[in-house]
Amino acid sequence: MTTGDVGPAQTRAVLDAAVGRVRPASESWRREGERRMDRLTKPPGSLGRLEDVALRCCAIQETLELTTVPRRIIVCAADHGVVAAGVSAYPKAVTAQMVANFLRGGAAINALAAAADADVWIVDVGVEGPIATSGRHARLVSRRVRNGTRNMLDEPAMTEAEVLAALQVGLDLAAEAVADGVRLLGLGDMGIGNTTAASAVTAGVTGRPAAAVTGRGTGVDEETFARKVGTVERATARHGCTPGAPLQILGAVGGLEIAALCGVCLGAADRKVAIVADGFVATSAVLVAAALAPSLTDYLFAGHLSPEPGHAVQLEHLGLRPLLDLQMRLGEGTGAALAMPVIGAAARAFTSMATFESAGVSEPEP
Amino acid sequence: MTTGDVGPAQTRAVLDAAVGRVRPASESWRREGERRMDRLTKPPGSLGRLEDVALRCCAIQETLELTTVPRRIIVCAADHGVVAAGVSAYPKAVTAQMVANFLRGGAAINALAAAADADVWIVDVGVEGPIATSGRHARLVSRRVRNGTRNMLDEPAMTEAEVLAALQVGLDLAAEAVADGVRLLGLGDMGIGNTTAASAVTAGVTGRPAAAVTGRGTGVDEETFARKVGTVERATARHGCTPGAPLQILGAVGGLEIAALCGVCLGAADRKVAIVADGFVATSAVLVAAALAPSLTDYLFAGHLSPEPGHAVQLEHLGLRPLLDLQMRLGEGTGAALAMPVIGAAARAFTSMATFESAGVSEPEP
Repeated sequence: MTTGDVGPAQTRAVLDAAVGRVRPASESWRREGERRMDRLTKPPGSLGRLEDVALRCCAIQETLELTTVPRRIIVCAADHGVVAAGVSAYPKAVTAQMVANFLRGGAAINALAAAADADVWIVDVGVEGPIATSGRHARLVSRRVRNGTRNMLDEPAMTEAEVLAALQVGLDLAAEAVADGVRLLGLGDMGIGNTTAASAVTAGVTGRPAAAVTGRGTGVDEETFARKVGTVERATARHGCTPGAPLQILGAVGGLEIAALCGVCLGAADRKVAIVADGFVATSAVLVAAALAPSLTDYLFAGHLSPEPGHAVQLEHLGLRPLLDLQMRLGEGTGAALAMPVIGAAARAFTSMATFESAGVSEPEP
Repeated sequence: MTTGDVGPAQTRAVLDAAVGRVRPASESWRREGERRMDRLTKPPGSLGRLEDVALRCCAIQETLELTTVPRRIIVCAADHGVVAAGVSAYPKAVTAQMVANFLRGGAAINALAAAADADVWIVDVGVEGPIATSGRHARLVSRRVRNGTRNMLDEPAMTEAEVLAALQVGLDLAAEAVADGVRLLGLGDMGIGNTTAASAVTAGVTGRPAAAVTGRGTGVDEETFARKVGTVERATARHGCTPGAPLQILGAVGGLEIAALCGVCLGAADRKVAIVADGFVATSAVLVAAALAPSLTDYLFAGHLSPEPGHAVQLEHLGLRPLLDLQMRLGEGTGAALAMPVIGAAARAFTSMATFESAGVSEPEP
């Protein structure tokens, strides 16, 4: 973490440069992969979607010798001023409590990341209040830009300088992952109130109405849900959120963790590292990143489909198809973690399988 | 392998005893699991289908301390006389060639099982011709009952004694897995022509017409497909296959690997080991096993959904919902292998997560 104290102008230049460096993944390596895929000892197409996953990895990694380890889940955590509007089932204090739970290894993401052979980095990019740091089951990165966002109903959630600072945190995290040799980078989030921010960002970037992209988050009741939809409607209207101005939308109605995850995406795609999106909140960060750099989706796997209704809207907008559909709606990077072994298995089969010639297996009869 | 040379009457008695010992999984351990699930640090229900997977594991393993390792994929291989009718895109020799490929570690199942941390046992229960055994990437169990089945269009594929011998192979394999401490057992198959046998078994057990349960297997052309449907129709009619006589159906139109996998299921459920089904062929073995012992499905996870149309029919008949849907149609246990990490992750989250009390995390506000 070396660039945390640069100013907004410098960060803006760094961001623009990263955006400019996100190039389409390699079509020629994909075709090279297709030639090998045709020779593997299996009926053509019989590995189904694993074949496309492996070919996309060829295009991203620019090799046929695919590797998907080491793996890392970056969980960005922050609080949200909009919680004051009564949009969540949980009190704001839970953000810091859950970060402490991550560090002690007691959360779902700890178990699912361990099962996926991924390490977990927890990034405090804007949590409110102190964090109990008594555990070491995840690495804590303290890069707090401010103590939570402002309430988007009253004013922009972040200033431009704050948005850029949070984006810079993400760019730095991606650079550090690349330096550590990470080949599969999962996106995770923690922040009470952040499905409201994600709904507002999604409404803004896609142009869809609040009702189409707002769900029940952690499980709010009917009354809170109605208030949440109204909040998204009013906030996006107040700040004039319309497609085409992704950074303005991010600042007005987004969140510090969403901005940081957006930076992670740009920094990873810039360096040709495959990214695994999680659910609704993480994918709102992808929406912004892809609006800035459309080729970014070449580097992105949609880990799973969340029942949060806006998630399908996001994936359709991005042209991505989720790998898993297990009705998970927890965030934290849990959907990304669960998808990592699927991507790893696809890559491993592609790279390690024998060909018809090498194995002496007969081909289909004409 | 100690019971390979007992006679049909003894095997029938062993089988009946195994069937009789398959009891429903424990409802009270499931309820015990639900009480713990409610206290874990996550919004209620937010782990989606992983919650049901974990609770089913509680009921199977009769504990809250779930374990899903060691894992094993048992791939039963055999040839099929019905190949003479021209129902497959590949020549019969491919069965033995692919078994050799498994042993050398060059097949998809080798890669996917390694990714799932599962060992692979290859069981020759009826391959025709010699097998090149130059590799050690999978364990080869040689228990050949006969050199492939007879052509079901002309006569029953197997005699009653052969069916029972193949079932006994499966019961023995399950017993050996239990002795080795295996906690997750995947079903795999290899056998050119075996989707035709699986279609006939499925038509017989479910009572559905041939056209509803017959697909393109490894990828046959239009003409071969029509011949395949006709073959399934004629064979099931000739042998009077109707629901209610599962062992008769298995013998008349099934396969040696299907019978062995049926034995694996019964032996594993009898000993409270969780089973992960693969695609269409493996699930045809489950159909027979569940017709004999209806509680068997309590112990069974449907690893994935194959695009082979009969697979959805089978799963609906069994009341099971697949975990993955990645358009895989390869067999070999590949779908089972890919699902194992999902089941493992569900179990791990359930057992290792903190509770609200232990983690000091606030609960939803009233």
